[in-house]
Amino acid sequence: MAEILIAGVGSTAFGNHTDRTGRKLFAEARSSALEKSAVPRSDVDALYYGNYMGETSEKQSHQAPLMASGIGTPGLEATRVENACASGGYAVADGVRAIMSGEADVVLVGGLERMTTLETAETTAALARAADELHEGRPGLTFPGAYALLADAYMERFGGTHEDLAHIAVKNHENAATNPNAQFHDRIDVEDVLEAPPVADPLGLLDACPISDGAAAAVLVSGEYAAEHNLKPAVAITGSGCGTESLSLQERGELTRTKAAESAAQAAYSQAEVTADDVDVAEVHDCFTIAEVLALEALGFYEPGEAITAARKGETVRDGQLPINLSGGLKAKGHPVGATGVSQLVELTKLLAGTHPNADAAPDAEVGVTHNAGGTVATAAVHVLEVAE
Amino acid sequence: MAEILIAGVGSTAFGNHTDRTGRKLFAEARSSALEKSAVPRSDVDALYYGNYMGETSEKQSHQAPLMASGIGTPGLEATRVENACASGGYAVADGVRAIMSGEADVVLVGGLERMTTLETAETTAALARAADELHEGRPGLTFPGAYALLADAYMERFGGTHEDLAHIAVKNHENAATNPNAQFHDRIDVEDVLEAPPVADPLGLLDACPISDGAAAAVLVSGEYAAEHNLKPAVAITGSGCGTESLSLQERGELTRTKAAESAAQAAYSQAEVTADDVDVAEVHDCFTIAEVLALEALGFYEPGEAITAARKGETVRDGQLPINLSGGLKAKGHPVGATGVSQLVELTKLLAGTHPNADAAPDAEVGVTHNAGGTVATAAVHVLEVAE
Repeated sequence: MAEILIAGVGSTAFGNHTDRTGRKLFAEARSSALEKSAVPRSDVDALYYGNYMGETSEKQSHQAPLMASGIGTPGLEATRVENACASGGYAVADGVRAIMSGEADVVLVGGLERMTTLETAETTAALARAADELHEGRPGLTFPGAYALLADAYMERFGGTHEDLAHIAVKNHENAATNPNAQFHDRIDVEDVLEAPPVADPLGLLDACPISDGAAAAVLVSGEYAAEHNLKPAVAITGSGCGTESLSLQERGELTRTKAAESAAQAAYSQAEVTADDVDVAEVHDCFTIAEVLALEALGFYEPGEAITAARKGETVRDGQLPINLSGGLKAKGHPVGATGVSQLVELTKLLAGTHPNADAAPDAEVGVTHNAGGTVATAAVHVLEVAE
Repeated sequence: MAEILIAGVGSTAFGNHTDRTGRKLFAEARSSALEKSAVPRSDVDALYYGNYMGETSEKQSHQAPLMASGIGTPGLEATRVENACASGGYAVADGVRAIMSGEADVVLVGGLERMTTLETAETTAALARAADELHEGRPGLTFPGAYALLADAYMERFGGTHEDLAHIAVKNHENAATNPNAQFHDRIDVEDVLEAPPVADPLGLLDACPISDGAAAAVLVSGEYAAEHNLKPAVAITGSGCGTESLSLQERGELTRTKAAESAAQAAYSQAEVTADDVDVAEVHDCFTIAEVLALEALGFYEPGEAITAARKGETVRDGQLPINLSGGLKAKGHPVGATGVSQLVELTKLLAGTHPNADAAPDAEVGVTHNAGGTVATAAVHVLEVAE
C-alpha cells in the first residue's frame, strides 16, 4: 500500500480528569501530536475521531467539528466514528484509507472518552449499550458477565485456570508501573488477583480494566508529504485491517474464537506482507484478562487453547520473547473507550521509535501490532506498525 | 477521480414506525438496495452507516456490526458514523473514499433513525446535543431557536419575509404529495404556514421538518467491478466533499453564510469538474425553511441574499428552472436524522435515472447535487451525481 508515516503522537495521562472538559482533554493530546509532528496545522486535511459515549457523559453529540475547530484549519473535514471500544482503531483505519485514496496527505486521528463524570452504575449502563440490546442488554447481560461467559467457554474447551489469567493482570500492572501515562502505577501479585472481590465468575475485580478519562491523537502523513517536507518519522503504518462478527454472542458458532479480530489481522498482515511470526511486540485489547488470551490467538501468535499460559510461562512479560502490552494495556494503563485504539498506536509508536519509557524491553523491535476490539469483539481493528526505512 | 457507480438504492417510507425495531427498518432498506443492485451479498466489502441517537432512542450503541451481520458477509468491515444530521452524508463520503483507496470494490452505505420511540421533549433534548453543549445547549438554545437566529440575521442583512420562507414549505409539501416514501402527503398553502403556531420567531410549526423514523441504503461499486460483472448503473457519484465550521454559532464570523457547506461544495464540484451552473436538480437540507435558503447560496446557485425569494418566484418549484427537493425534502419527506443524507442520494439517483415518481419534473436532468448538514451546518457533506455514460 501507499506509504503512511506516523509524524507525531500525543496523549493525556489516563485516569480521573473530572476537572477538565472533553474538549480540553482532547486539545492536550491533539496539540502534543501536532507539535511533535512539525506539520503546520493548516496542512491537516481531515480529522477522524473516536468517541463512544459523549452524548451520555457530556451531553455532547456531534463532537467532530468541536474537536476539529481547535486545529484551526478552516473547512476541515471531520468525522466521529463510534464502534464501541473499537472506535479509536476504526478512526485510525479511516485515516489510513483517506491517505490511500489520494484525497488527503495529512490526517489527524484521535479519540477521547470521559467516563468519570457519571455514577458507576450509569457508566455500566452506557457500556452495556455496546452489546445487543434486544438479546443481551434487555435480559441483563453486562460486559463483565459477557467476558465471564467467554472465559468459561474457553476453560471448558481448553482448560486453564483463573490463576493463569491472574498472571496477565500482574504483567500488565508491572508494565504500567513505569509508564507515566498509565492510570495505575501499583504492582500487584497473583494472590491479589485471586483474592480480589468477584465480579462475574471466574473474573474478579483485578481481571477488569478500570473506568477512565483520557485522550490520544496521532498525525499521519503520506510518504510523498514527508519527503516534500523533509520529515523523517521513525515509524510507518504498513497494514490496516478491520472486521466484524455478529453483535450478540448467541448468534456465533463458537465462543472460543474472535473472528472479527481474525479477519482484521488477516487483512492487516496481508497488506503489510508480514506474518504473525514477524511481530516483535504488540498492544492488544485486554479489557478483561481473558480478552488478552483471545487476542493473542486471533492474531496468530498462539494456537487455539495455548495463549492462556503465555503470561504465566513468562513468554509475554517484559523480558519475554513477545512482550504484550508494554504500556500496561487497558488493564492498567486505563481504558477511556474512544481513545483506546488511538492510544495503542501512540504507545506502540513510541516503543518502536525507542522513546517509550519501557522501550528497553523491546530494543530490537521492528514490527509491532495493535489490536482494538468493540463489545465482545463484534468489531475489531488491527494495525501493523514498522520501523520506517 | 475513480469511477463510482450507484448500483442500487433502497428506502423505507419515512414516518412513524414505532411498531418496528431499528434493525428491521434498516433491513428493509438494505435488502431493497442489494436486490436492486444485483450484487451478490458476499461481494460487499464494507458498510458505512449513519446513526445519530440510537443510544438514546433504542439504548443501542455499536450498531454497525448489528446492521452488517444481516448482509451475511463474514468479517465485513462496518463503521458507524455520527456527525449529527449529516451522519448519512458523511457515511456516503466514507464509502466513496473506501472505493477510491482501492481497498473496496463494493460498499453499502446506509443510515437509520428511530425518533418516535421517545417523548417529544426527550427527542428535542437528544437533538440539542448536536449543538455546543457548553455554549448553546446549557444556556438553553434548541435547534428551532438556533435556526430562528439564522433567519433573523439573514433578514436583517438582506431583507426577506416569513412569507418568502412560507413558499419553500408549500413547494416541498407539493413535491412530497406525489412521493409514496414521504411522511406528509397533504398540500399546504402560504396562509397555512403563516398561521401555524409559532415555534421560534420568525419560524412557525410549518417552517420545521417533522420527527421521523426511517432508513435508507445504497450500493456503491467501482467502475471496474461494474464492467467485470456487466452491471450498467444509470447514475454515478462524480464528486464528494465534506466540510466543517465551528460547532457553536458564537464562534463564527458571520451568520448569513454556511461555510462548512461552501467548503464541501467546492471540494465536490472540483472533484466532479462541474460548476453550480451545471446543476439541473438538487436535494438540500431543509430542516427549517431558512436552511434551504442558506443551502442554495452555499451551493452557489444564488448570490448571498437572493435565494430567499427563489421558491416564491417559482424558480425552485417542480416546473422551475432548478427544481429543489423534488422528494419533498426534510420538510415534508421527513427527517430520520441518520438516514437523511443517504435518503437524499436514494431520491436523487431515482430522479436522474427517471424512476422517481416526480422524475417528470426534471426529464433532462443530467447533473444533480445532494447537500446534507449537521447542527447549524457545523458539518456538511455534498455529493455530485451524474447520469452515467
